[in-house]
Amino acid sequence: MLRDIPPILSPDLLWSLRAMGHGDDIVIADANFPATALGARCHRLDGISATEVLEAVLRVLPLDSFVAEPALVMEVVGDAAAVPPVVEAFGRIVEATADNPAPLGRLERFAFYERARGAFAIVQTGESRLYGNIILKKGVIG
Amino acid sequence: MLRDIPPILSPDLLWSLRAMGHGDDIVIADANFPATALGARCHRLDGISATEVLEAVLRVLPLDSFVAEPALVMEVVGDAAAVPPVVEAFGRIVEATADNPAPLGRLERFAFYERARGAFAIVQTGESRLYGNIILKKGVIG
Amino acid sequence: MLRDIPPILSPDLLWSLRAMGHGDDIVIADANFPATALGARCHRLDGISATEVLEAVLRVLPLDSFVAEPALVMEVVGDAAAVPPVVEAFGRIVEATADNPAPLGRLERFAFYERARGAFAIVQTGESRLYGNIILKKGVIG
Amino acid sequence: MLRDIPPILSPDLLWSLRAMGHGDDIVIADANFPATALGARCHRLDGISATEVLEAVLRVLPLDSFVAEPALVMEVVGDAAAVPPVVEAFGRIVEATADNPAPLGRLERFAFYERARGAFAIVQTGESRLYGNIILKKGVIG
Amino acid sequence: MLRDIPPILSPDLLWSLRAMGHGDDIVIADANFPATALGARCHRLDGISATEVLEAVLRVLPLDSFVAEPALVMEVVGDAAAVPPVVEAFGRIVEATADNPAPLGRLERFAFYERARGAFAIVQTGESRLYGNIILKKGVIG
Amino acid sequence: MLRDIPPILSPDLLWSLRAMGHGDDIVIADANFPATALGARCHRLDGISATEVLEAVLRVLPLDSFVAEPALVMEVVGDAAAVPPVVEAFGRIVEATADNPAPLGRLERFAFYERARGAFAIVQTGESRLYGNIILKKGVIG
Amino acid sequence: MLRDIPPILSPDLLWSLRAMGHGDDIVIADANFPATALGARCHRLDGISATEVLEAVLRVLPLDSFVAEPALVMEVVGDAAAVPPVVEAFGRIVEATADNPAPLGRLERFAFYERARGAFAIVQTGESRLYGNIILKKGVIG
Amino acid sequence: MLRDIPPILSPDLLWSLRAMGHGDDIVIADANFPATALGARCHRLDGISATEVLEAVLRVLPLDSFVAEPALVMEVVGDAAAVPPVVEAFGRIVEATADNPAPLGRLERFAFYERARGAFAIVQTGESRLYGNIILKKGVIG
Amino acid sequence: MLRDIPPILSPDLLWSLRAMGHGDDIVIADANFPATALGARCHRLDGISATEVLEAVLRVLPLDSFVAEPALVMEVVGDAAAVPPVVEAFGRIVEATADNPAPLGRLERFAFYERARGAFAIVQTGESRLYGNIILKKGVIG
Amino acid sequence: MLRDIPPILSPDLLWSLRAMGHGDDIVIADANFPATALGARCHRLDGISATEVLEAVLRVLPLDSFVAEPALVMEVVGDAAAVPPVVEAFGRIVEATADNPAPLGRLERFAFYERARGAFAIVQTGESRLYGNIILKKGVIG
Repeated sequence: MLRDIPPILSPDLLWSLRAMGHGDDIVIADANFPATALGARCHRLDGISATEVLEAVLRVLPLDSFVAEPALVMEVVGDAAAVPPVVEAFGRIVEATADNPAPLGRLERFAFYERARGAFAIVQTGESRLYGNIILKKGVIG
Repeated sequence: MLRDIPPILSPDLLWSLRAMGHGDDIVIADANFPATALGARCHRLDGISATEVLEAVLRVLPLDSFVAEPALVMEVVGDAAAVPPVVEAFGRIVEATADNPAPLGRLERFAFYERARGAFAIVQTGESRLYGNIILKKGVIG
Repeated sequence: MLRDIPPILSPDLLWSLRAMGHGDDIVIADANFPATALGARCHRLDGISATEVLEAVLRVLPLDSFVAEPALVMEVVGDAAAVPPVVEAFGRIVEATADNPAPLGRLERFAFYERARGAFAIVQTGESRLYGNIILKKGVIG
Repeated sequence: MLRDIPPILSPDLLWSLRAMGHGDDIVIADANFPATALGARCHRLDGISATEVLEAVLRVLPLDSFVAEPALVMEVVGDAAAVPPVVEAFGRIVEATADNPAPLGRLERFAFYERARGAFAIVQTGESRLYGNIILKKGVIG
Repeated sequence: MLRDIPPILSPDLLWSLRAMGHGDDIVIADANFPATALGARCHRLDGISATEVLEAVLRVLPLDSFVAEPALVMEVVGDAAAVPPVVEAFGRIVEATADNPAPLGRLERFAFYERARGAFAIVQTGESRLYGNIILKKGVIG
Repeated sequence: MLRDIPPILSPDLLWSLRAMGHGDDIVIADANFPATALGARCHRLDGISATEVLEAVLRVLPLDSFVAEPALVMEVVGDAAAVPPVVEAFGRIVEATADNPAPLGRLERFAFYERARGAFAIVQTGESRLYGNIILKKGVIG
Repeated sequence: MLRDIPPILSPDLLWSLRAMGHGDDIVIADANFPATALGARCHRLDGISATEVLEAVLRVLPLDSFVAEPALVMEVVGDAAAVPPVVEAFGRIVEATADNPAPLGRLERFAFYERARGAFAIVQTGESRLYGNIILKKGVIG
Repeated sequence: MLRDIPPILSPDLLWSLRAMGHGDDIVIADANFPATALGARCHRLDGISATEVLEAVLRVLPLDSFVAEPALVMEVVGDAAAVPPVVEAFGRIVEATADNPAPLGRLERFAFYERARGAFAIVQTGESRLYGNIILKKGVIG
Repeated sequence: MLRDIPPILSPDLLWSLRAMGHGDDIVIADANFPATALGARCHRLDGISATEVLEAVLRVLPLDSFVAEPALVMEVVGDAAAVPPVVEAFGRIVEATADNPAPLGRLERFAFYERARGAFAIVQTGESRLYGNIILKKGVIG
Repeated sequence: MLRDIPPILSPDLLWSLRAMGHGDDIVIADANFPATALGARCHRLDGISATEVLEAVLRVLPLDSFVAEPALVMEVVGDAAAVPPVVEAFGRIVEATADNPAPLGRLERFAFYERARGAFAIVQTGESRLYGNIILKKGVIG
């Protein structure tokens, strides 16, 4: 454990967050997400909710201000307009914690997988609420 | 996630529990434990308490009945008789969950480290209560 | 061996089942299947029949309910309508054991190979009955 | 599968049997044996009994005739004179199948572990009978 | 060395033969063949003729009966109709030793290389006769 | 770069600081220190002074309060009582920045090397002042 | 440290500079550049400015005289004509230090990333000025 | 060193020459050639001229007689007809040393790089004369 | 294959012979020798006799003239004075082929194994004659 | 090649020289030295004399001034007082090129090997003069 750094940020996750550069994506994924199959770097946080992880990550990670939608969630299959509770909670955390808050963008399920495949890393949480997945694009510190 | 297997048992931890044989030790360690330095196989469960991990592990792992003390905790430095609350909780969980319950044995801090160095694996939890460390010796299924 | 987990699920196979996510495929293949050539992760269960493995796997793996055919078998070469005894047995096991039973889908031999190439893992059993191959798509636990 | 070679001999196990030389040991171990912790090369045959494996191995492996006890079993803890049924079966298979049959030698439990640690390979079977462990020393083909 | 298994089948070659499945190819190549450049798995048998290797391989490997030409040789450059003595010898060995004998098919030199690139393994022999190369497709054991 | 974390803490160094546990040592070494030869994990910060690194490290790393001398410097060869300016600066930084400040302990040159050999990691800085080396023992966060 | 070689050139960076050949590119990047994601070889110089690194690199690296623009910078997003102070400084250093000085070429942000992806190596500096990125093409020593 | 084998043929270079087969290319490159970037196998002979290396290589390597131009050099950029002194020397060495001498073929600079990228190996010599690069195609020993 | 180098010297064996230095040992072992277990570098020449290998090796390897017994064979177990035919043949080959011929020394079986464990490499031949093992110490080329 | 750095210093050798710290040893060895067997890091400079390498190395490497004999040569076997010509040349080069010249120390052959075993790296040159071996201890740059 370290002083003033959220304790759920594991050594490997902290490494990825620090090594990422401007424009690199990180995915925070729920417990059912095919993270191992999609991502070269997969950091597990079994048993932790995606909302706790999102808050801890945004405390240290700058969000990109060069793009309109630096944070993206997955659309509900068969109901693109739906906003599941976990997604609503994501929105509130981004608003409250990010250095550059922005409304959440959306991607269809397989487009989300495709985007995740090119991400710098995927964090597999223990989130049991369906659609508890979010992609963050790293910004700069000037 | 799998049916009827506690979800905090990660793929790597499940691998170790299944690959261990009779007499192999596993350490469930608190967030301050020098797990990376001591153990060849270190499974992280950041953010999860040691008591939750102990309960999940004992639901699948048989405890050794060939030895008197198949479960061992660390003595408080400077007060060998003390029983910290987390250790008391360990005792109750072993009693309630193990297939072969047994009273907890004790090891002095550096003897505990030495024993951990030879363990099959160490699980580094997010336990923030000091002395939240326990060693389990695997038993047989006959 | 572990408590209440089928003993033929080896450490590596258990790892794959646990690490797989929603939509990932696993192949249970007979003794003649070109598993090593097709699959990055090949788990061997020499000497065990494919039906025993299917039953053990379905006791822990949720089957996908997002698609119509979450379980697929290989068509007999030259007789697409044939239902070999081992395939009939597969159908009964899926019906009896899966959390989301569904009728078996079918793939032509080389289409089956192509699909297997992208699977998360292939389990090579000792099944000596020809056409003793089945693909399972993992579902979610909500 | 290959012609005239017992199908439960997996690729890795066949590799070890062929690569072993005069005097190298191989251990056939039961499902509770701490094989992963003790052996650099661990071949799993989950679900197969130790007696089936012993018979298949002895069909291809010459037994050493330079030593008095080329095959060794583990003594029952607390009853060194006992002969468990699985050990009795081992004796009959060695007698019937080995090129150089010899009576079984015995080692105390921890001496058996120590010997296994230096073996060329350990085969972890699915043997559920306790004490289903045997060490074989490879002989020469002149 | 093992009982009743041809001694020139090395540990690695035996591994490949056993791990191959239905439809996988293996190449037995002469001493001038670019085996290292073409093949991911290259087994060397320096000093052994290709005909000796072919006979040893066919004693354990089933030949595919699902295709018309399970065994293929390389056409002489500039004289496609020629049958070099080593190829004639290949034909006699396939006839005498294979479980499913079949007449030899032929491939132009660069088509042979391309096919070899996708093979499961290449055995580089010490064969000094030019065109001493043959591809075998593995069959099934029912 | 990350929010509120000193930018000279590189991804690898941050990984080590986070993965270290209670009682593990980290060495901050000058540009002439034989870090590669002594340490399994060597993190380079070429061009940065040891004092800058010490301050950045102590902002996140807790110092051990279980031992009398959690911070140790190297004695000047041939003048054990000397206090080089860089060591004086180390003392002021520990006093000002550590969570558990303590006076600096001392080790003779080769004893310092021996201790460094067992450290969790060594940070090789660009410090050009001789004797710009310090060992820190990690504490706990309760 | 070595005699007469700039001390901020780390062992790995020196390796890359020496191993590069005619026409290979090296990128000197600022602290926000996505170096780990883009480059197979990433050398970190955290805490050092890009201008210091450029000067040290050009003291040992010949610049290519076969092309018109052997040094390339990134255009400001949304203002292609702008010349940020750090780029102005790059120009002066190339002029003063290179063996074959040449005016700086320019690439649009994503074209710069694409070019960087094929570079021999990327040096991630601690440069905090935005647009502190430059690509150098190695020349020959005749 | 070995009896009757040119001592500048290093262990790795000798390995490549021996492992190459009919039709595989090897590049002997000058000190400015981008060998590390282009070649999977790069053997360094720093300080040795390309002509010395060519002579040593041709003493053991058969040259291909199946193609018209088994040896290829790089055209001078901007003067395709030029024959630099080092190329003239290459011609004399091929004539005097090769088992199957042939006139040198030529490739434009970038075509030469492209061909080198597919070579079995590249030998980076210390040749300081520009255009001191040659590709050799291995022949057969009948 | 290479010009004037014995074709049974494989790429790996040639690498070892060339990389060995003054005083390094190489073992030429029969088909029953425990080569894989004893040696870090094991080169297989299945199917080739030890005498053929010895002759090929001595054509390129200088024998040490700094020691009295640069070539050592294994004593017959139980009959130290015996000279098996293969050993007699070894003696004649050393006499006829070595640059520095010397009478063969002898080592008891387990002392031979111990010496082999420290050798630079072991060549496992297909030698079927018992006691077909010899150790050679490399000399210098002045 | 790099500006003002001796071209025979290869990328790997330059890496070692730069990564070495105060007190680390490097060995420059002749062509017969058992470098691969003794050293974890072995840099080859086949075909280059040891004296050329010594001069190039000393142009960049500081020699240790903390010990009396920072440069050590090997005694002639059987004539400890002899000074072979290559050693005489070593002495002159150290005198002329080192930053801290010192008379050469001496070690008996096997003591020299033992010291080399602990060195940071060994450079295997093509030196054909016997006893062309020297150990250098790196100094500091203050």
